[in-house]
Amino acid sequence: MNLQVTISPASVTDVPLILQFIGELADFERLRHEVVATEEGLRKTLFGPRPFAEVVIARDGGEAVGFALFFHNYSTFVGKPGIYLEDLYVRQHCRGKGYGEALLRHVARLAVSRGCGRFEWSVLDWNQRAIDFYKKLGARPMQEWTIFRVTGEALERLGSEPS
Amino acid sequence: MNLQVTISPASVTDVPLILQFIGELADFERLRHEVVATEEGLRKTLFGPRPFAEVVIARDGGEAVGFALFFHNYSTFVGKPGIYLEDLYVRQHCRGKGYGEALLRHVARLAVSRGCGRFEWSVLDWNQRAIDFYKKLGARPMQEWTIFRVTGEALERLGSEPS
Repeated sequence: MNLQVTISPASVTDVPLILQFIGELADFERLRHEVVATEEGLRKTLFGPRPFAEVVIARDGGEAVGFALFFHNYSTFVGKPGIYLEDLYVRQHCRGKGYGEALLRHVARLAVSRGCGRFEWSVLDWNQRAIDFYKKLGARPMQEWTIFRVTGEALERLGSEPS
Repeated sequence: MNLQVTISPASVTDVPLILQFIGELADFERLRHEVVATEEGLRKTLFGPRPFAEVVIARDGGEAVGFALFFHNYSTFVGKPGIYLEDLYVRQHCRGKGYGEALLRHVARLAVSRGCGRFEWSVLDWNQRAIDFYKKLGARPMQEWTIFRVTGEALERLGSEPS
């Protein structure tokens, strides 16, 4: 594993870099059409008065090689918060050097130090390399669960019709 | 739909009721063995200085008929927070009267009013009644994603080994 990597919390000046990483990750996930994030939106929601997620950036030498974005979730069965890792990304030409594992372990350490009961994330079913990597690190696929999502007009409707 | 239902934020005095609901939900999900939550833990993490989730309780007349527990998640593609519904539960003898839909719409309204881009939750694959209900309300199953989870000793290991 590469020991030169430093991982530290992002600051508001990293917003353009974060947006670039989000776009590159979306390209990799073949989901670029879903990206509507803007620098202004990221600034407001990540570095405003109520930050909705935390970002750490991995750097080697002067180069930013990847990032992780995460927030606290909650398990009622455990009765404790957990950490949900929304994004873990390492730039394509920097892969295979241990940066991804270093980022994952960094967030796991935060979860342990904050008394969290769980550390979770989601993976696309075709991303076998990631799946193998996560299993090797002790993570378990929750195959019996399916995520449901409401967005856009369907969300507006669900939230506006009289109940 | 039952129009007598009132939905309001839980207070710390509702902790015993919330723990009871969590246990009943776990029974329904055949996951009671996973429940280690305590009243003390719920008090500290839901009603302490840093609440990690929000709880609303549905009542009809004097009777508490169900609850929803949710927290803010974050979408990097949207560049905005969302709401993740961790638990939606209606007591067995109160089902089929619209309380579940009222709770879901209540949280959807909160998501819209808070400017959220997404409203999400997870469902067990065998719970066809819930799946049909969610689809009818405009939610879409994210079947290409699998949740990975690390807990307990595996989390301790992941968070403690040198990287």
